[in-house]
Amino acid sequence: MTGNIEKRIEDIQLSKCPVRNVLDHIAAKWTTLILLQLDDGPKRFNALGRALPDISKRMLTQSLRDLERDGLVSREVFPTKPPSVEYTLTPMGASLLQPIMGLIGWAQKSMPAIDKARISFDKASVVVKRISI
Amino acid sequence: MTGNIEKRIEDIQLSKCPVRNVLDHIAAKWTTLILLQLDDGPKRFNALGRALPDISKRMLTQSLRDLERDGLVSREVFPTKPPSVEYTLTPMGASLLQPIMGLIGWAQKSMPAIDKARISFDKASVVVKRISI
Repeated sequence: MTGNIEKRIEDIQLSKCPVRNVLDHIAAKWTTLILLQLDDGPKRFNALGRALPDISKRMLTQSLRDLERDGLVSREVFPTKPPSVEYTLTPMGASLLQPIMGLIGWAQKSMPAIDKARISFDKASVVVKRISI
Repeated sequence: MTGNIEKRIEDIQLSKCPVRNVLDHIAAKWTTLILLQLDDGPKRFNALGRALPDISKRMLTQSLRDLERDGLVSREVFPTKPPSVEYTLTPMGASLLQPIMGLIGWAQKSMPAIDKARISFDKASVVVKRISI
């Protein structure tokens, strides 16, 4: 990790930096899960809701709106009764899945080591608490 | 994006999934910025605070604790007066920077297209509002 990293750090340090602004969205948990869902093909709002049962309707609506606004997802309304709404990954949205999968791959590979670190950290914290009592 | 993506989606759909649990942390805005800061070399708490002026002391403390617990950052206390605390990237923390840089690279490359999408989305929203008034 060398090269132009200093420049990149400088770039994203300021809260108004556009890259940081984009990363904030990407970093949102639901964004990633919605994009992965849509990688299978277009889905209706209710199908997304069923696939992600622990996201509220309100949060799903807001997340989809953010994704649509960023040009990562497109939204189409069909004149059925009642009208149905379908969401599709745009080519730019699909291109984001590659770096996201890099992150997921890292998380899957590193999970055992992270679990181990957490257990040893928590054990040490208990010892410190006992000493200070 | 094919292959074992369905399996991965299944894996991360449940909120108790360990990979999702790790991703939640990684996705936290400050985590990424702190890791990038430490890529330069070890830093003291106050130096990190100065480098990231829009993070509160409380949030910095909590983020560093999370990173330490996950084994991504190590913390060393020096017996100076007053004691000073230094944070260093662990090898696992350093390995996370690679996929993170993939995401930052994507964001930098995609920024102009995202900006354009946002402008056109916001314009369309204004039109919809006018029509509905």
